Amino acid sequence: MSCSGRKKADGWMDDHIQALEVIVYDDLRVSLAAPYQLQPKPEVEELGFGRYFTDHMLKIYYHRALGGWQKPEIMPFENLSIHPAAKALHYAVQLFEGLKAYRGRDDKIRLFRPELNMERMNLAAQRSGLPMFDGDELVKCISRLVQIDQEWVPHSETSTLYIRPTLIGVDPTFGIQAPDSALLFAVLSPVSAYYKKSRDGAVSIFADPNVVRAFPGGAGNRKVGSNYGPTIEATSRAEKLGHQQVLWLFGPNHELTEVGAMNIFIVYINEHGDKQLATPPLNGLILPGVTRRSILELASQWEDLTVKEEVITMNNLIELNKQGRLLEMFGAGTAVVISPISRVGFLDMDVNIPTMKQPAPVYQRVKDTLLAIQYGHIEHPYARIIS
Amino acid sequence: MSCSGRKKADGWMDDHIQALEVIVYDDLRVSLAAPYQLQPKPEVEELGFGRYFTDHMLKIYYHRALGGWQKPEIMPFENLSIHPAAKALHYAVQLFEGLKAYRGRDDKIRLFRPELNMERMNLAAQRSGLPMFDGDELVKCISRLVQIDQEWVPHSETSTLYIRPTLIGVDPTFGIQAPDSALLFAVLSPVSAYYKKSRDGAVSIFADPNVVRAFPGGAGNRKVGSNYGPTIEATSRAEKLGHQQVLWLFGPNHELTEVGAMNIFIVYINEHGDKQLATPPLNGLILPGVTRRSILELASQWEDLTVKEEVITMNNLIELNKQGRLLEMFGAGTAVVISPISRVGFLDMDVNIPTMKQPAPVYQRVKDTLLAIQYGHIEHPYARIIS
Repeated sequence: MSCSGRKKADGWMDDHIQALEVIVYDDLRVSLAAPYQLQPKPEVEELGFGRYFTDHMLKIYYHRALGGWQKPEIMPFENLSIHPAAKALHYAVQLFEGLKAYRGRDDKIRLFRPELNMERMNLAAQRSGLPMFDGDELVKCISRLVQIDQEWVPHSETSTLYIRPTLIGVDPTFGIQAPDSALLFAVLSPVSAYYKKSRDGAVSIFADPNVVRAFPGGAGNRKVGSNYGPTIEATSRAEKLGHQQVLWLFGPNHELTEVGAMNIFIVYINEHGDKQLATPPLNGLILPGVTRRSILELASQWEDLTVKEEVITMNNLIELNKQGRLLEMFGAGTAVVISPISRVGFLDMDVNIPTMKQPAPVYQRVKDTLLAIQYGHIEHPYARIIS
Repeated sequence: MSCSGRKKADGWMDDHIQALEVIVYDDLRVSLAAPYQLQPKPEVEELGFGRYFTDHMLKIYYHRALGGWQKPEIMPFENLSIHPAAKALHYAVQLFEGLKAYRGRDDKIRLFRPELNMERMNLAAQRSGLPMFDGDELVKCISRLVQIDQEWVPHSETSTLYIRPTLIGVDPTFGIQAPDSALLFAVLSPVSAYYKKSRDGAVSIFADPNVVRAFPGGAGNRKVGSNYGPTIEATSRAEKLGHQQVLWLFGPNHELTEVGAMNIFIVYINEHGDKQLATPPLNGLILPGVTRRSILELASQWEDLTVKEEVITMNNLIELNKQGRLLEMFGAGTAVVISPISRVGFLDMDVNIPTMKQPAPVYQRVKDTLLAIQYGHIEHPYARIIS
């Protein structure tokens, strides 16, 4: 239990206020890896996505019977010891976040709006019956982990250190109930590109009206494991057809929701003749992406662009494209940053989108702006210097 | 790799036939627990559901890079050592089965239609990008595990040994892709009742039209972890309202799909004045339960009962009940066997169902028949003697 003895009410649907231990950064204990445990750092060209891990990890246990959150611990990276009946392995009582640490041109290390990841992680915990926590304290613990493994933050502006906080239910019992024990852990992975691109530098996506990622009354707007496993089969099928990702549609009008594990954006000429940047509204089926939100906020200050959250159907898309008004399509997310899209397979057609043919594409401007903030080329409140 | 060198084509969406090692019972290696590792067996009254585990477990690894399925191993029960990036912990790349070993009046141990669990487990593997396997070989491995821990099969007809085969993706990488490494494990747990009952011996269920368990194009008809975690929040809410479980509805007509983690049945007087046993058809939203299928097959031979798979809406249910034609409602599944239901909360009403007031209820006859087969009171091809 926490030395400082700070307690607060249990966040999760508890009618009676119960004082439980919270995550406290000041309680953090650090055990450094021995020199012989340190791993060699791979070359930037070899990184790929999520294949290498740093020398340390963060672990914080939650045990209701022991009063709540236990002391945070940073320790040498190691396998987890998990009871075979743990709810995380059977009932997908699990959620995760993804954020990155960027080494700037000034050699300082920055996080990008980590408070938004913490907010979303807590919403996912609430949705899953997992314990909530103080996001500021967790950011402090994660920042310390990044500081300890700071030599793993690539000295390159094409690579970053990906941070994966994860929260899993670990009770060793079979009932399908909110867990009384949980493990929050964070691991770090130096990464470069997420997707392999096509020849034109863009990706091709497949829109299959028969597969559905999320549905009203479900958990599609929360970053929980359940939203990902069931998409693998459809993605493999799309790959066999020569596409990189699935464009997830919903409903009889084939509304666009997400693409792969990214939010989706289009750029087109609207009915007033203006250039419009659009993305589907957060209707409960869509993950509230940090990159998505940042793009909307940043681009709404650009005077030559109208920015709108609006329903986009496959018919809209095809019509705009026929009329020559569809200019760009791209996916956006922390892992990929911005991923331009040049082709959508749908039923028996190929919708070819001139994303890569624009003289000054919006996707590139968005990407340049985000990277400039993330790598410290410009000062911006979205970036938080941690080292 | 397997000594016997048996190989067959990889089942999972592989266009080019690739010879991969299969699960072979004859390759099984057994390491018995030392006497000091053996756990005391709890009293039947203390069992509950899934809280105690036996002394041994089964593990079978799959590594595509090593040729496929590795040798099955039975070993002392232990925690799993799992890489923190394992896909099972982040993307719910995981599935499970539930079956039971029953100690009969003749002291013989029986399984109930295990081949159906194996079939369903393979369908779930296919849906999840996990490797498929030969179900007969796995049943042999599981039977051996039960034989080794046979003293854990309760000497009681109110208790059984629950068998939980589980298959998880264990690749230590972050991409959302079909895993190249997997672990199939099975653990055993002596169990008694699953639910606490109300005073009348039945359960009360809550039908909330705003929560959805499964949807067309999803994985609701496969026993994968993703179908369970997202139901915990809704179930907790139902419990706060005084119900034990959620009745999962779907669509604008509020079709009944499942209840809790069970299939749902009703008994009513049909338009011909006959007693009819009905359950919703397997429409892609419903788990194809082994108990469900067995009930349909057994009851269709009872001459005083019409048996039908048919769509049942909340309106149907309420109307039948108003007319005094609704006689019973019950849930059915391996964990619970048969769970009579006497109340459905829906919108602002309570639908009270006279399940517990029938002189010779169908649910009891179904339950008695199943238990008679499972505990060897009657000889039946559904029961497979393994010891």
